[in-house]
This record gives sequence, C-alpha cells and structure tokens, in this order.
Amino acid sequence: MSTAGQVIRCKAAVAWEAGKPLSIEEVEVAPPQKHEVRIKILFTALCHTDVYYWECKVLLFDIMNITTFIFCKYCHCFPLTWQGYTPLFPRILGHEASGIVESVGEGVNDLKPGDHVLPIFTGECKECRHCLSEESNNMCELLRINCDRGVMLADGKTRFSINGKPIYHFVGTSTFSQYTVVHVGQVAKISPTAPLDKVCPISCGICTGFGATVNVAKPKKGQTVAVFGLGAVGLAAAEGARVCGASRIIAVDVNPRRFEEAKRFGITEFVNPKDYDKPVQEVIVEMTGGGVDRSVECTGSVQAMISAFECVHDGWGVCVLVGVPKKDDAFKTHPMNLLSERTLKGAFYGNYKPRTDIPMVVDKYLNKELGLDMDKFITHSVPFADINKAFDYMLQGIGLRCMIHLDA
Amino acid sequence: MSTAGQVIRCKAAVAWEAGKPLSIEEVEVAPPQKHEVRIKILFTALCHTDVYYWECKVLLFDIMNITTFIFCKYCHCFPLTWQGYTPLFPRILGHEASGIVESVGEGVNDLKPGDHVLPIFTGECKECRHCLSEESNNMCELLRINCDRGVMLADGKTRFSINGKPIYHFVGTSTFSQYTVVHVGQVAKISPTAPLDKVCPISCGICTGFGATVNVAKPKKGQTVAVFGLGAVGLAAAEGARVCGASRIIAVDVNPRRFEEAKRFGITEFVNPKDYDKPVQEVIVEMTGGGVDRSVECTGSVQAMISAFECVHDGWGVCVLVGVPKKDDAFKTHPMNLLSERTLKGAFYGNYKPRTDIPMVVDKYLNKELGLDMDKFITHSVPFADINKAFDYMLQGIGLRCMIHLDA
Repeated sequence: MSTAGQVIRCKAAVAWEAGKPLSIEEVEVAPPQKHEVRIKILFTALCHTDVYYWECKVLLFDIMNITTFIFCKYCHCFPLTWQGYTPLFPRILGHEASGIVESVGEGVNDLKPGDHVLPIFTGECKECRHCLSEESNNMCELLRINCDRGVMLADGKTRFSINGKPIYHFVGTSTFSQYTVVHVGQVAKISPTAPLDKVCPISCGICTGFGATVNVAKPKKGQTVAVFGLGAVGLAAAEGARVCGASRIIAVDVNPRRFEEAKRFGITEFVNPKDYDKPVQEVIVEMTGGGVDRSVECTGSVQAMISAFECVHDGWGVCVLVGVPKKDDAFKTHPMNLLSERTLKGAFYGNYKPRTDIPMVVDKYLNKELGLDMDKFITHSVPFADINKAFDYMLQGIGLRCMIHLDA
Repeated sequence: MSTAGQVIRCKAAVAWEAGKPLSIEEVEVAPPQKHEVRIKILFTALCHTDVYYWECKVLLFDIMNITTFIFCKYCHCFPLTWQGYTPLFPRILGHEASGIVESVGEGVNDLKPGDHVLPIFTGECKECRHCLSEESNNMCELLRINCDRGVMLADGKTRFSINGKPIYHFVGTSTFSQYTVVHVGQVAKISPTAPLDKVCPISCGICTGFGATVNVAKPKKGQTVAVFGLGAVGLAAAEGARVCGASRIIAVDVNPRRFEEAKRFGITEFVNPKDYDKPVQEVIVEMTGGGVDRSVECTGSVQAMISAFECVHDGWGVCVLVGVPKKDDAFKTHPMNLLSERTLKGAFYGNYKPRTDIPMVVDKYLNKELGLDMDKFITHSVPFADINKAFDYMLQGIGLRCMIHLDA
C-alpha cells in the first residue's frame, strides 16, 4: 500500500542535546512538499561533520568583514552564511547515506518512487549562476551546504516531529532516520544495480578526497603526489592518485598508527613530520629532488596547508586544499613561492556537481572504471540501534567508515 | 668585412657605480664563445629591473631555509640563487631589446649572422627538467634569470672590457651596448620583417603582463577582469584581457594620474583604493555582484596581492600574481577563500618559453592576430647618448616605455 501523501512513522536517531548519545525514537515524517523527495534510507555512515555538529563546538569567523561564516573544523565541506547561531536541538543528523525514493512532492519530475538515490549535503539547483556557469562546480546559490538551517526551504518548517514537536534537519539530509525528506536538488539518482551499502560513502567523504585529486590536482601518469592526512578523505585522495597512475604517493600524518592501515591504499612512502627537526616540506623537497608534482591537504591544519603548498615543485606544482581550517587560521607563504609558477587551489566535495556528476561516479564504480575498492573504506558495520557505537569509533579514531544499517 | 672572430670596439652605457648616471664609453666586445651569440643591438628600452640593479638597493630573503634568493622589487621576473652578494660594478645593464646577430660561437646551429633576434633575460636550454617538462614553462635550470651573475657561463669571464678591465654583464643580456654577447638559450629568433623598434618591448614587459592574462588567467569572452597596477606590465595585462574579449576590465591603482593614460588601453573602470574606507576587494566584489572572474596583480604590493585574490568570484575565480614582493612580505588569506574553489597562481615572463614561444608571439603581432598595438606602449624615444633621460622618465613615472636608439 502506498504511503505517498501520508505521514510516515519510523525510527530515527535523535540528538536531543549537544554531546549526549543519540536516542532512537519513533518520529513522524511529513510528506514531501514542492520540490522535495521523501527517501527511505537504507544505509548511512558517520562523517566527522556529524560528530562536529553533535558536539556543537562551533566556531565563528569573519571573512573580509562582509559576512560571517560558520564552519566545521574537520570537514571538507563548508562555509555558510550565518546570523546569530544557537545550536539547533533536537535534531536528526546524518548526511552520508543511500536509499530509495518513497514519494515525491509537486514539481519533481526527474525522480519517482523506487529510484535509488544518494542524498547529498550540498545541492545543485541547475538554475543559479553557479549551476549554470561552465566554470563553477558546486557552489549552488540556493542549495550550497548550510549547517545551521534546520528547516526546509519551501516553508521554513521541519518535516520531522514527535508528538507535534518539531525535530530539526541537518544539512538538508538528516539521514539518521529510516525516512527523510530532502530537496530534489540534493538528491543524486543512481543506478538501481548499485549496492547501496557500498556506494553510500560516495555521497560525502570518498568524493571529497578522490575528486580533489582526480578533478582538481589532476596528476599525470608517473607523477608524484603528496597527501596530507590519512583519514577517509586523505585515503580517498591517495586512491585518486593511484588511479591516475602516480609513481610515488607520499603520505604525511603525525599519527604513525594510521600508516599500517594506509598500506592497503597504494601509498608508497610515509612521512611523519615528528620524525624530523625541519619542516616537512623540506623533507619532501629533498626526497623528490625539488618537490612533488601535486599535493592534496586533507587535515585542516593550517601548518599542513602551508607545508602542502611549499612541497610542490616550482614551474608546475599544484597544491589542492581540502581540509577546513580553524577560526583564526591564516594561510601564509612568501609570494615568491607562487611567482615561481606554483598553483594553489581549494576543492569542495571534490568539485563534483551533486546531481550531474555523482550518478556517473557510481556508474564508473560499477563498471570498475573508477578503480576504487569501497570495501577498503568500510571498516565497521552496526545495526541502527547501535548508532552510538559509530560515534565511539570515530571519537577513538578507530577505522575509517562505520556502516549503519537502518533496516537492521 | 666580417667582424666574426674579432674583438669589436663599440659604444656602451656603463654603470660605474650604484645610482650614478651611466657613462657612454668605448668598450671591447670579445667574440662569442661556445653556445654564445654576438648581437648588434639596435633598440633597447628601460625596464624597472634595470633601474633597480642600477640603484642597487637589493633585498635578500630566505625561503624555507633551503636557499637564499635575491629579487627585484619592481619586476615581474625573478628569484635567483644567491650566495654572498656584492653589488657588481662596473656593469652594462639592459635587457629589453632587439637586434641582429653579428656572429655565433661554436655549437650554435639555429642562429646565423643576420638573423633578427630578441635577447631574453631568462633562458630556455631545451635540455633540463623544466625545458623538457610538458607542464613547466620557463624555469630553465641552466638559464633561469640570474641577476647577480656578471659573467658568462662558458668560462666565468666577461665579454666586455675597457683597456683590459672587465665590465660585468647583467641578466645575460647587457643590451645597453651596441654589441653584446648572449647565451644562445637566451636568444629568440624572430621574423626578419618585424620592425625591431616596435617588437623590442615584447622581450620583457609586454610578454610579462600580456602572457599573465592570456596564458595563465585565461579569461573567457565576456568575463570580468581586474588588473592591479597601471605600469607597462599592468597595461599589457589589461590588453590581454581586452584581446580575450573581457566585458569589463577594472583597473586598480593608487595613482589617479595613471588613469588618464590607461584610457587608451580598453580599461572600462578605474578604482583608486584611496577613495574608499573599506578594502578594495570589497569594493570590487560589490561592483561585480560577487567578484571578478579573473584578476592579475602587477604591483608587487603584498596588500594588492591579497586584494587581487580576495576580489575574485568564488566557485571559479582565478588570481594571477605577477608583481614581485618585498623582502619580508607574506601573502596571507583565510584558507576558506581557497576552499570555496578559488585559484591562486603566479606567472613569470607571462609563462612564455623564451625561444619556443616568442618568435610566434612576434609573428602574431605582425599578422595582427595578437591584437596588441605596441605604439601605445612606446611613449618616448631618445638617442643612445641620452640614455640617462630614460632613467629620469622612469624615476619620475613619466610615460611607459622609452625607446633608446643605439645607432642614433
């Protein structure tokens, strides 16, 4: 029997307040409104950003005195406009996920019930200056990631409630729920043959790192690549380098425990900055006879950003920043490092367009053209009831991705 | 009668000591040695770099504790390896010039007497890692600009002398002489139909600015471009924007007198940062509804560099740095400005390869494909005897390029 147009009662993991374990509750999920899609979530994983907004140790900073942004200290994903922040609770977190369309709202023509989809934390309206620009990737004016908005754009209200009390959304996805409502511009329709558990991390971390290398740094076959930070994003960046045919992939991390795990990812050399009494960029310049051809920074440490930039070769080196910095950080380098023909770029969600590119990424994964083995990233798995274990793993730095089974 | 193999006696403008007017002297110019070319210089212009090394207020700075560089505070052209600098005098300055090959040394196969050439301050050996790289442009390991070496590579000696006393070279070109000796890797062979007076500035300033726009910033038709600094390099960068079909070319300079002259260069708007009580990047972001598509920085002021970067649009904006900074400057920006998909690059000599690209640039100028009117840049002209007037013009900020006629 179709549930379209009906309120759905299902389980969701609700964050009632900052830093307290999530609580599995029965929630009511309202039908999708105009340009919205209701999705049955089957798998979701935990990303640092969820933990960050759960802990709610948010930071404010000011750029250029024009507007104030808020951002996540871990994630690869976001500035957002901000005016007067109060941590939003109760809230349903979650943004790395996969599922099946249950029903669609008015004006949704390119999705129908039964479609397999990935909800994406940042959107593509296909109508704004960014979406229409042939040069821009995913800085959509309407649907660019917004971490502090807890309601839907259509009516400024939530689609989640418990006994009439609204439960807030998170980055427009709120995938820690068996059903969720998402703006159609944040939904990538993927092949129905894709295994939804495997492709789940494509919706955030994998694309963020992999895309930073293959779409932005673009190493050529035989070139050398340095990757700073060996979390899931950094390892995905390293996988991107391997797929591009890099001859040397030099990983930099201050945690030597990560090196063991990273050996499964085609990394050829490891450098722990703590082992040297000089800046790590000098170490890499010496190791490579002048610098690497490309570097990708996935830690968010501003010192690592500077090192990542200064370790690329003059004449052609390209450094791509992915990790998001702290509030008061400033990227700083002598301009001569730029004038000797180095390039510094930033990437956001691997510069993929959420709706246009992600279906193709999934197809390439299925056809084995992508060269990525998703199993290497999925190190743990828990039933929905044990979602707090996933938080524990992340907080303790255990594993890479913990897959949460919402139907289990 | 051929002068090949003979010492040539001719006139040269010798800088005997820092900051003192040049003195026209009769010098002896030895024959070219292996891989060298002796050139009869017909036209030379004055560039800030000549004035800088004549004034000899050089600056030292240290990058990454690896090696020490010396650089010109005006020019668009150079870091150079350095160990223990003593200002080199007596010296023959000059590097923006055109002439005709008089004779060639051993091993020079691609040039012959009578060829029309531009000597270039930075070289292309066609054999090193940079010259062979498909990604590098002009950071040649053998012949990259070197401002402190006053002798030829072949034997560590000068080719200039007065009564047996050696007179030092400058950036391997020393074009303030009716005859000079240059390494073949620093000589661009150009069409014999090119008017040598007009194409002279292609050998330095024009390519530096024009190339920064057309080769590095690469604005698309209809895009907006901001140019910081309205000297010859900045105006050449603006010409590059015009040729690329920019819809708006916004010029930024703190000297309003320059605006009048710049109107001849297709610039559509002028901004004097002194007219505003907020950073100029904010002014430009407001003028353009989010930022320009491209910017080119040609002043060397680190604050202008930061403004040039922060005034480009998120999602696709590209900023190209051309001007060379002061000793203790640090380029500084919040990393979020990069993470929102802006690109920061540096350019050197417009990223042209001296021997490979410059002949083609001259051909395009001749065929009117380049779109550049060189006459607009050549605002003054003096006979060789009056070369010090060219220094006066530059020091007083009068005009753009003063053409010095060595035969007059």
